[in-house]
Amino acid sequence: MRPDPKMSLAEVEAFLEAEFPQLRHGGRIMVRVESVGPMTARLRLHSDERHLRPGGTVSGPAMFMLVDVGIYVAILAQIGPVALAVTTNLNINFLRKPPHGDILAEISLLKLGKRLAVGEATLFAEGDDEPVAHAVGTYSIPPR
Amino acid sequence: MRPDPKMSLAEVEAFLEAEFPQLRHGGRIMVRVESVGPMTARLRLHSDERHLRPGGTVSGPAMFMLVDVGIYVAILAQIGPVALAVTTNLNINFLRKPPHGDILAEISLLKLGKRLAVGEATLFAEGDDEPVAHAVGTYSIPPR
Amino acid sequence: MRPDPKMSLAEVEAFLEAEFPQLRHGGRIMVRVESVGPMTARLRLHSDERHLRPGGTVSGPAMFMLVDVGIYVAILAQIGPVALAVTTNLNINFLRKPPHGDILAEISLLKLGKRLAVGEATLFAEGDDEPVAHAVGTYSIPPR
Amino acid sequence: MRPDPKMSLAEVEAFLEAEFPQLRHGGRIMVRVESVGPMTARLRLHSDERHLRPGGTVSGPAMFMLVDVGIYVAILAQIGPVALAVTTNLNINFLRKPPHGDILAEISLLKLGKRLAVGEATLFAEGDDEPVAHAVGTYSIPPR
Repeated sequence: MRPDPKMSLAEVEAFLEAEFPQLRHGGRIMVRVESVGPMTARLRLHSDERHLRPGGTVSGPAMFMLVDVGIYVAILAQIGPVALAVTTNLNINFLRKPPHGDILAEISLLKLGKRLAVGEATLFAEGDDEPVAHAVGTYSIPPR
Repeated sequence: MRPDPKMSLAEVEAFLEAEFPQLRHGGRIMVRVESVGPMTARLRLHSDERHLRPGGTVSGPAMFMLVDVGIYVAILAQIGPVALAVTTNLNINFLRKPPHGDILAEISLLKLGKRLAVGEATLFAEGDDEPVAHAVGTYSIPPR
Repeated sequence: MRPDPKMSLAEVEAFLEAEFPQLRHGGRIMVRVESVGPMTARLRLHSDERHLRPGGTVSGPAMFMLVDVGIYVAILAQIGPVALAVTTNLNINFLRKPPHGDILAEISLLKLGKRLAVGEATLFAEGDDEPVAHAVGTYSIPPR
Repeated sequence: MRPDPKMSLAEVEAFLEAEFPQLRHGGRIMVRVESVGPMTARLRLHSDERHLRPGGTVSGPAMFMLVDVGIYVAILAQIGPVALAVTTNLNINFLRKPPHGDILAEISLLKLGKRLAVGEATLFAEGDDEPVAHAVGTYSIPPR
């Protein structure tokens, strides 16, 4: 029912490395894809001083980037690198102040149509059960 | 009806400089506040290679950061640096692929209550009439 | 730059009357289009006991319906009744408790592309300056 | 960790019956609460000619109402009828055209704070696995 993704984790990583060099900063990878599955993906944001805000927690824009890349990766893995999906809408709720440390994003695609894909992201601080943020994004898929 | 903001442009800039050092990158300011007014603010995102994506346009996360800082600045200027407003929800629509160059954000507060503030942001590429993005954000204002 | 709409107010009203009989209730029209213009529309929600909630104000779902019909009407008037636009995303912020009485919606299209249209709605209680709600919606336009 | 709700299903139903008479239409209940659990609820929208649109499917406003009541019910059941939560933001994505028939809403609270609660709703057509809509809503909880 949910077909296997067309790209492996290694293929997704190689694609991101080539196409999104800005995911590196000062030579360090900031966002890493941990796994891809049928209509799902799991990513990790390495905490880094650039993402800090007053209070020392991971910033909203850093979590936004994690969500945006994460849903993109789940679409990419599922349909293959045949077209460049573009974010059209992203709605994010910040639920709790995250502690120091890495942030994990669990991504799940709610819809993968011919023209639009919709994905959901739930963000957790590592080792914590309660989500720190939740987001839903829509991506436009160009005609193939 | 809409009272003048409590902070001047210079005061807002000094506050951001002290509290948000991450708005600098490599010594350069990435986001500058151009003006504050009653329930409004105008900001500029200096384009910078870190914000680029495949295709060479300003990235979604960079525009998200501009919106997030912009609505925060409009609230801060209006009520003064008495409390740290926290983003609880931000919904952004990406409307057009922005060309190279700076992005301007026109911010307008739709509501400034005791506990919640809601602001709207319309983003333009400099010199262009059609918006490249539009966002609405909600901020929680701590008890004073 | 913004071309005139393809449908007149009378044409839009006739179309809605034929295609959306549910905008009537017990023989009374609940939502009326007051004007259409280039990329804009203005609608009125007649207050009605069915829309009330505890406290006697207009309900959230009634305001949602007003926004949803309003952005649809602005798209319809602009491009003509050639295709049935479908709501894909709607984000609404409720800003103030509306008093008794009619609600007016000012609609403005932020984007009218070939595949997606995005519109903004600001809702006011009649005679009041402060908005009671604000919404942004995305509509998918079928291939023509 | 997630304490049991303070209200039973029968108590929630009696509260809604008394406080939201508009959930009835022409004597028929349109929305029924099927269950409440720790931070969760399940509701059913009875399909009804008033909710139809061109094409014969359940309307967006009817699904919005189902979500809005559903998250409200999950909060109410969890904290008891001590305060009237008010919707401040609701973001809904329409994913597929629902077929005729009842719509089920699975509600889950992502956060239940002192001042704000955030809930998620996934809507299904009865007997179908793929969601027809997904929504996230924020509710303000008055000081107790």
